[in-house]
Amino acid sequence: MYGAGDVRVETVPEPTLQAPTDAIVRTVRACICGSDLHPYHSMPELPQGATMGHELIGVVEEVGPQVTNFQPGDFVVVPFAAADNTCPICQDGFQTACPHVNFFGPGTGGQQAEIARIPWADGTMVKVPGVDPATADESLLKSLLALSDVYLTGHHAAHMAGITPGQSVTVIGDGAVGLSAVLAAVRLGAGQIILMGRHKTRTDLGREWGATHVVEERGADGIAKVLELTGGFGSHAVLEAVGHMPAYEQAVGVVRPGGIISRVGVPQYEEAPVGFGSLFGKNARLAGGPAPVRAYLEDAIKDVLDGTIDPGKVFDRTIGIEDVPAGYRAMDTREALKVMIRF
Amino acid sequence: MYGAGDVRVETVPEPTLQAPTDAIVRTVRACICGSDLHPYHSMPELPQGATMGHELIGVVEEVGPQVTNFQPGDFVVVPFAAADNTCPICQDGFQTACPHVNFFGPGTGGQQAEIARIPWADGTMVKVPGVDPATADESLLKSLLALSDVYLTGHHAAHMAGITPGQSVTVIGDGAVGLSAVLAAVRLGAGQIILMGRHKTRTDLGREWGATHVVEERGADGIAKVLELTGGFGSHAVLEAVGHMPAYEQAVGVVRPGGIISRVGVPQYEEAPVGFGSLFGKNARLAGGPAPVRAYLEDAIKDVLDGTIDPGKVFDRTIGIEDVPAGYRAMDTREALKVMIRF
Repeated sequence: MYGAGDVRVETVPEPTLQAPTDAIVRTVRACICGSDLHPYHSMPELPQGATMGHELIGVVEEVGPQVTNFQPGDFVVVPFAAADNTCPICQDGFQTACPHVNFFGPGTGGQQAEIARIPWADGTMVKVPGVDPATADESLLKSLLALSDVYLTGHHAAHMAGITPGQSVTVIGDGAVGLSAVLAAVRLGAGQIILMGRHKTRTDLGREWGATHVVEERGADGIAKVLELTGGFGSHAVLEAVGHMPAYEQAVGVVRPGGIISRVGVPQYEEAPVGFGSLFGKNARLAGGPAPVRAYLEDAIKDVLDGTIDPGKVFDRTIGIEDVPAGYRAMDTREALKVMIRF
Repeated sequence: MYGAGDVRVETVPEPTLQAPTDAIVRTVRACICGSDLHPYHSMPELPQGATMGHELIGVVEEVGPQVTNFQPGDFVVVPFAAADNTCPICQDGFQTACPHVNFFGPGTGGQQAEIARIPWADGTMVKVPGVDPATADESLLKSLLALSDVYLTGHHAAHMAGITPGQSVTVIGDGAVGLSAVLAAVRLGAGQIILMGRHKTRTDLGREWGATHVVEERGADGIAKVLELTGGFGSHAVLEAVGHMPAYEQAVGVVRPGGIISRVGVPQYEEAPVGFGSLFGKNARLAGGPAPVRAYLEDAIKDVLDGTIDPGKVFDRTIGIEDVPAGYRAMDTREALKVMIRF
């Protein structure tokens, strides 16, 4: 990316091992993230450009001398952030706050590419056992790719909300992460799932995955609708997958006293209401952050392999690497929900 | 109270039953709360005055026709807020967000008095079995009185933080609630308890109750000290018992990634930092609110009666009703930590 709206596909030198804990991975599938649209809208012009992409599944090509868990030929899922996975914070399950964390982002990742360098490979990547990506079903590859970020970000929202069976859950946002949060809430046993969104093709997938209600209204009208659907009390858990202030305010409006707002939409604000009139007075809690994908990845791979979940359904368009600029445009104009790149 | 700094003791008509769910309780002990100092500092002049006080233990004198759990002569603890204790929100354990909640406050309570009207008596009050207040030990009465607000407010902070055995806990504030939070954290099995406060007589009680470290420094220095005591990571749980913005900022600074800030100091702000740079980036959570004392009261009465906890030690001065104006002054000037009123 050379600036807002300016995505180019270029041939660059292949990445090489830089640390003994690195691995080089040849990409099988990568994708474009909703969060890639932020720089697509606002990145200042950058003459040297920035490599893009932070989600991939691939085959290990080379490992550094200190990498012991992987060898060339292993098929792996790579989370959107690298971490050592051995420090006390990683052991607590918060790998995205690891002192060694490496968020793949513009210039620091580059997974929308044929080949990528993965730091802290032993701590970061997880093997997919018994699958040959060359012959695997396309829908299986989609679902595995969804585990590198989007599905497990939705899962993180549900997990941090501590959803227990039978609870009422409201999901704010019908993007790929919001829909993933619906699926994750179902997995945790939610009794009622209200999806707040207004794009029918998207909310239809939400219904297919288990949303019991769809609320199209926003703001005060949307809040009133959710309160009506919850006996006037609001939802025990609100999964906020947008990141803008109106979504936060909506979350405050629909959370039940003693309930929890769990955010995975990256906040586009720093300050927000948390005092007596918003959270404190009704003992509402606030949780969430960048998903520690690695903490959930082994279980999620099992769930995908045994067919329990099918998170790959968020991918509604597949392109080749040469079409990545068009892929950004399709997501930006909402023609596509989420775009997969096949190599 | 007739305005800031203007507390008078006057003879007024005795309260009478107003609803069939009311009870009239004759006060045995009441007290002055740190939160009473807010109107003491800032209440506009009010010609008719406002009755004050929201903490009491007493003997039931009369009950309305729909009150079935109590009869005249019962010795009870009365929480600082009345609630029906039957609605779904109460059943979830958040009685302070009950649709029928009645926060006793200036003009709506009046427990700094010989006799008081308690709404929703069946839902609000809890009997103390086997104790005759006329002959009971003074320290027992103090500890029972502490359950009407201060101790269980500290307990609420610890409970909402979900403290598990061995965790590191930082308590911000060495007032009566902060000290109570130390005692509550010990009860939940905290491994390390860092008390941030600078009043030696108070932090000494904190140490007696189980604080393992005292940090006198505030702001950046205080944060650095706590990080040093926690291997650079911060505490799993931060119990914030102050309510002012510097305390909130201190809490953000000392909370461990993935940890939780639990507030019971009533926030003197509405907006606060919650974005990527404060809570979101490190997956820190925020919890707390007005303590649903009723939810914890039965267990806490048992703990007091069997000597497991001695929360009454926060009362370091006892006065008669005629000395209440002097009691406010003593707490305001920090000569007294918490003042009990004997009737």
